[in-house]
Amino acid sequence: MDLIVQKFGGTSLSDDQSRRHVLRHIIRELEAGNQLVVVVSAMGRSGDPYATDSLLDLIRGRGDALPPRERDLLLSCGELISAAVLCNLLQAEGFPSVVLTGGQAGIRTDDHYGSARILEINGERIRKHLSAREVVIVTGFQGMTRDGEVTTLGRGGSDTSATALGVALKANIVDIYTDVDGILTADPRWVSDARPLTAVSYEEICNMAQNGAKVIHPRAVEIAMKAGVPVRVRSTFSDSEGTLVTNAQALRSQGIWYDRTVTGLAHVKNVTQLSVVNHDGPADLQLRVFRAMASHGISVDFINVMPTGVHYTVSDSDAPLAVRLLAELGFEPQVRRGCAKVSVIGGGMNGEPGVMAVIVEALTAAGIPILQSADSNTTIWVLISETDLAEALQALHSAFGLHLTPNRRNIEEEVGL
Amino acid sequence: MDLIVQKFGGTSLSDDQSRRHVLRHIIRELEAGNQLVVVVSAMGRSGDPYATDSLLDLIRGRGDALPPRERDLLLSCGELISAAVLCNLLQAEGFPSVVLTGGQAGIRTDDHYGSARILEINGERIRKHLSAREVVIVTGFQGMTRDGEVTTLGRGGSDTSATALGVALKANIVDIYTDVDGILTADPRWVSDARPLTAVSYEEICNMAQNGAKVIHPRAVEIAMKAGVPVRVRSTFSDSEGTLVTNAQALRSQGIWYDRTVTGLAHVKNVTQLSVVNHDGPADLQLRVFRAMASHGISVDFINVMPTGVHYTVSDSDAPLAVRLLAELGFEPQVRRGCAKVSVIGGGMNGEPGVMAVIVEALTAAGIPILQSADSNTTIWVLISETDLAEALQALHSAFGLHLTPNRRNIEEEVGL
Repeated sequence: MDLIVQKFGGTSLSDDQSRRHVLRHIIRELEAGNQLVVVVSAMGRSGDPYATDSLLDLIRGRGDALPPRERDLLLSCGELISAAVLCNLLQAEGFPSVVLTGGQAGIRTDDHYGSARILEINGERIRKHLSAREVVIVTGFQGMTRDGEVTTLGRGGSDTSATALGVALKANIVDIYTDVDGILTADPRWVSDARPLTAVSYEEICNMAQNGAKVIHPRAVEIAMKAGVPVRVRSTFSDSEGTLVTNAQALRSQGIWYDRTVTGLAHVKNVTQLSVVNHDGPADLQLRVFRAMASHGISVDFINVMPTGVHYTVSDSDAPLAVRLLAELGFEPQVRRGCAKVSVIGGGMNGEPGVMAVIVEALTAAGIPILQSADSNTTIWVLISETDLAEALQALHSAFGLHLTPNRRNIEEEVGL
Repeated sequence: MDLIVQKFGGTSLSDDQSRRHVLRHIIRELEAGNQLVVVVSAMGRSGDPYATDSLLDLIRGRGDALPPRERDLLLSCGELISAAVLCNLLQAEGFPSVVLTGGQAGIRTDDHYGSARILEINGERIRKHLSAREVVIVTGFQGMTRDGEVTTLGRGGSDTSATALGVALKANIVDIYTDVDGILTADPRWVSDARPLTAVSYEEICNMAQNGAKVIHPRAVEIAMKAGVPVRVRSTFSDSEGTLVTNAQALRSQGIWYDRTVTGLAHVKNVTQLSVVNHDGPADLQLRVFRAMASHGISVDFINVMPTGVHYTVSDSDAPLAVRLLAELGFEPQVRRGCAKVSVIGGGMNGEPGVMAVIVEALTAAGIPILQSADSNTTIWVLISETDLAEALQALHSAFGLHLTPNRRNIEEEVGL
């Protein structure tokens, strides 16, 4: 008997038909004899009356003056409503179930309303209900302070609720149900032959999420990673097994590590490149530039400090402010709007020679200029023009053979470990 | 400085325009230097997505199997949402305010989900916020068990929340805002010259509410009555003072008791009269009849036991079952469907001779047969045909001069007390 945490997002709970699929996944695990904790998001997408955005619309344009504590109270209704709807369906099918708010589920947080951190989880009450053979439905995205105040964990918070509960309850697996068949090698809206991955490591999925892939919240992955609880990202609307996320050792020991150097691609659009040239200027140019950005809360990326000056990127929306700040410091930066950052991600590229060569070759062959680049031991980033994005993603996807279904081969045999 | 509890119903909170009126009443009291606890119902009427009925619609027709505990969790969202919306408006106008759930407001209840009883109220937290010059917005209709479970108080529960808080906080007054100008002498949809009453006693309003007038929940009145906290029923949409509800002594001492024997009329439609005749039947006829009704949960009214048989009324919807039960006992009742019960209510009629005479005279003059009658020391009930209802109400309203604005005269002078 396994203990499984399932998390269903808003799209999976948006209408009767989707909720039938949700029921199917729950009942399958129950009939296999497993214990189930089901974490739910608010129902539906923007436009549905009980979606998080719709609740916020009750405030927006009406003064927008709701204090953070009350904002969290308001938002907590979204998950409560979808939890009750799911509970009703399960009961009607004859499966006893109970709804617990984040607080009732034992999730204690600090009091940073809107982005509270989980301090600890007391799983006692959940375990009691599981022992009584009940499905425990927990409202995602929310917790409670020690003083009994309702808090929310910020966007992506239901993923965090799910993995944190998985860790606290020592679950066998945390299944994150979404509307795609797992984690894909690239965004299928941009790369026609993108395909689902069978398995990735925690580090890889973190890199993907941090670099623009909308798969699972990075904080949720970090929590699972620390405790080594395996996560599966899978589709509500199919019976596909989805993508297993665990640590590299576990993947190797299960023989499902591939002979791959590159796992997938991610990208971020709407990036502006700023270049500040150092014409006999002060030696503390970079210090003054980044201090100005930081003091105004502008996130910077792709920082490249050279004797001749500084290159870095900001979001297109922050660009006008950044340029004004630089002007106040007496600098006239070169500004290139409409750039895109492409991330080539692979836990297996560490120390592998030639990855950068493949990237340069593929982009050059496609006539795409590389505006800037950076690398870590698991990711290489290139900055290109947004107009080149579709072609660049397709070219890199093909160059690394990501469209090919890999053989299940143990990398340990391959590299003789 | 007074401490005032204000309660706003769903219609008062249903749209931006109504909420402007709500704000007006709140700000008026704040500017007069008063402390305010504002109790809110769920927004809007049936059809609005956040109304109580709409939340229930998420369950209805989808198995209807939600356990009572989870049903209360779901319903509690209605008031939370309207409380947050009101808090936002107040903050935007520069008035600090805080939202407290029933539990956070210190309302402890038993665990009879759906119709929980208030066990005690700890007003400490509310007082703390009031001292900090904050408007305290409390979600009506709900409380919390000692174990931290959310409960609801049943229909009309926001009125109960308001008067119970008024008692616990020793409020100077509880203002129940609704969509009519206080308590009227009769239902204005039936009696064209019905007019608002300046003051009534707790007993009178209880009688009205129990006899079909939709003014304020009887349980709420009982709570206020026990502690002697005055209540005002008034309109959100006007500046009328509404109707003061307090005890007869207080009304007398303030000189606002009228020389009236009859205060108002109330009525209930869709009543069926059943007559079971005792043809040499068993002596325990009435026992067998009422035992059968009770065992099937049928409410009976207008019971009239005579040597010749039994007359009583049930609702039209219970009538078919009642007739079947009587047939099973071997009785063939006379059945008169489509009756109406008219209540003539007045705290001053106790011992006053001639009230029944006025009723009989008015109805006889209008050619309306009285099918049955009953009386207590503050109310006389007559059963008539529903087709005669409009004419009967108008005739009685005129006969007792309820359309005339009374002089403010102290009954003590009148009766020489």
